[in-house]
Amino acid sequence: MQTVDYVIGIDIGGTNTSFGFVDRNGTILCEATLPTQADQPAQILVSRLCDAIRDSGTTLTQQATLSGVGIGAPNANYYRGTVENAPNLDWGASVNLVDLFRKRFNLPVAITNDANAAAIGELLFGGARGMKHAIVVTLGTGLGSGIIVNGELLYGADGFAGELGHTVVDPAGRHCACGKRGCLETYVSAPGLCRTVCELLAQRREPSPLRETCFNHLTSKLIYEAACAGDGIALEAFDSTGRILGMKLADAVAHTSPEAIFISGGLAAAGDLLIAPTRRYLEEFLFSTYKGKVTLLMSQLPEGSGAILGAAALAWCEADKFSSTPA
Amino acid sequence: MQTVDYVIGIDIGGTNTSFGFVDRNGTILCEATLPTQADQPAQILVSRLCDAIRDSGTTLTQQATLSGVGIGAPNANYYRGTVENAPNLDWGASVNLVDLFRKRFNLPVAITNDANAAAIGELLFGGARGMKHAIVVTLGTGLGSGIIVNGELLYGADGFAGELGHTVVDPAGRHCACGKRGCLETYVSAPGLCRTVCELLAQRREPSPLRETCFNHLTSKLIYEAACAGDGIALEAFDSTGRILGMKLADAVAHTSPEAIFISGGLAAAGDLLIAPTRRYLEEFLFSTYKGKVTLLMSQLPEGSGAILGAAALAWCEADKFSSTPA
Repeated sequence: MQTVDYVIGIDIGGTNTSFGFVDRNGTILCEATLPTQADQPAQILVSRLCDAIRDSGTTLTQQATLSGVGIGAPNANYYRGTVENAPNLDWGASVNLVDLFRKRFNLPVAITNDANAAAIGELLFGGARGMKHAIVVTLGTGLGSGIIVNGELLYGADGFAGELGHTVVDPAGRHCACGKRGCLETYVSAPGLCRTVCELLAQRREPSPLRETCFNHLTSKLIYEAACAGDGIALEAFDSTGRILGMKLADAVAHTSPEAIFISGGLAAAGDLLIAPTRRYLEEFLFSTYKGKVTLLMSQLPEGSGAILGAAALAWCEADKFSSTPA
Repeated sequence: MQTVDYVIGIDIGGTNTSFGFVDRNGTILCEATLPTQADQPAQILVSRLCDAIRDSGTTLTQQATLSGVGIGAPNANYYRGTVENAPNLDWGASVNLVDLFRKRFNLPVAITNDANAAAIGELLFGGARGMKHAIVVTLGTGLGSGIIVNGELLYGADGFAGELGHTVVDPAGRHCACGKRGCLETYVSAPGLCRTVCELLAQRREPSPLRETCFNHLTSKLIYEAACAGDGIALEAFDSTGRILGMKLADAVAHTSPEAIFISGGLAAAGDLLIAPTRRYLEEFLFSTYKGKVTLLMSQLPEGSGAILGAAALAWCEADKFSSTPA
């Protein structure tokens, strides 16, 4: 019987938590999902997860050696191993998830936020394989980002580097949930796209099916469908979103000079409606030194598995550090 | 007789070129300056420099071992060893200065741009000593920057990472020499300060001694003196400059999450007139995660020697890489 080395990648969200057994090539041997029950203490989730992981392990057809555990979670701090003040998890100011898992697994365990996990996933298993410098942007309810520098994820002094969603587009602009104004994610995210449509509906006079939907029922999916049907307001909303994203990505390039930028997450499913204008404006806003040098791509990770693969990639990185540390 | 290890740090500017013999602690054993003669080929400068360096070497009172040569120059590329399209040096598209020096010195030779050299200088000999993550901003005719990540200067994919001067403040803003509009350095630099004063003179009605000076004769020194004398326009120009710098530094923090940011260069001589508002606005614009964590400081390198010390720090870094590379 063949033996396979694997890690467990865990993706914790406000509603569901998924995990998968992932080998060195990024193949998911098996995966499962359970409800997070975010109103319960973190200890309960860890306990339920460990049971589910044990059950899944028995279904493996190959003999398998577990090398580590990686976790992607909102508001996670890699240095401290904690989830801190996560708005959609009722876990309080700080829970040390790494400690909770280490009590169950005598193995390397690491945690980072979702966008950082996506970036490590892209680096190990996706389009950034072999790259030294890249940026991964995740577009969903917010805008997350992970920055690869010298072939490693950049954590910075406090473990929270790479928060491009809260760079400023307009200091007098839209109110952001973070308390600031004009943050990038108030324009470039699923809700940001809806706000832009709302603004355009106010500014313009042309008819649009989107005038029939109230603000609370607007979704990026509706806007996508309207754009596909040729609606001018929806098309302009995507163009405007791409312009702002392109402009701020040009700023990001002037910081770390990546080879490539990858776009992932729910809103990236809009494909060329968003990617094409973003690419065009990025090139337009790039400082001359960087022009023609930076590739903008969709994430090359399989849709839907990105989060588990990201957490698994983190686990592999930690496992390798662990095994190369002198005793 | 005591032996001392030293490197040569060379700072090439459009008008003058300075060099110094610098030991491991950042002590300058001796230094000298010669005219660059920027209209002559680079070979001539290298030849004159080598003669001057030889002459200076004979004045050393200690027995000395030379470990390497570091060069700071405008538009220099660390990876390629070149100076490329430097606007104030008549050297054409590309000159490989590292090759030219290696023909004279059988030693590690490295080159980088002025702002990167300033950052390495701050890291080895200045206020960033012992820091893993920092940013150095040089304010003069332009705005240069060098980013320290994981204890090393960040070069990025193409060797030109850290061009914060060309991040965008306002896409419809001031025309920049680079061809773009609204770049940070059109607001935050010595000429940027003059442009801001000019704008304020147009907007406001109050009297100001600066109304007696034509645009071409405005200097940051005049504005500094007016501000020290209590002139409202000059004071507001510094405040506005600090606001824009603080806002964009908050963006920079959201990229690499540094412990500290250092401000150096001619305009930094304005001291608290510029640093105090920059510090206040930086804190105001910081994403909540970073608030209270980032220190803004003046460069801790001795005024006037920063460029030579930066180039020397680069030389020490290369010498150490060289000596730690397995044969």
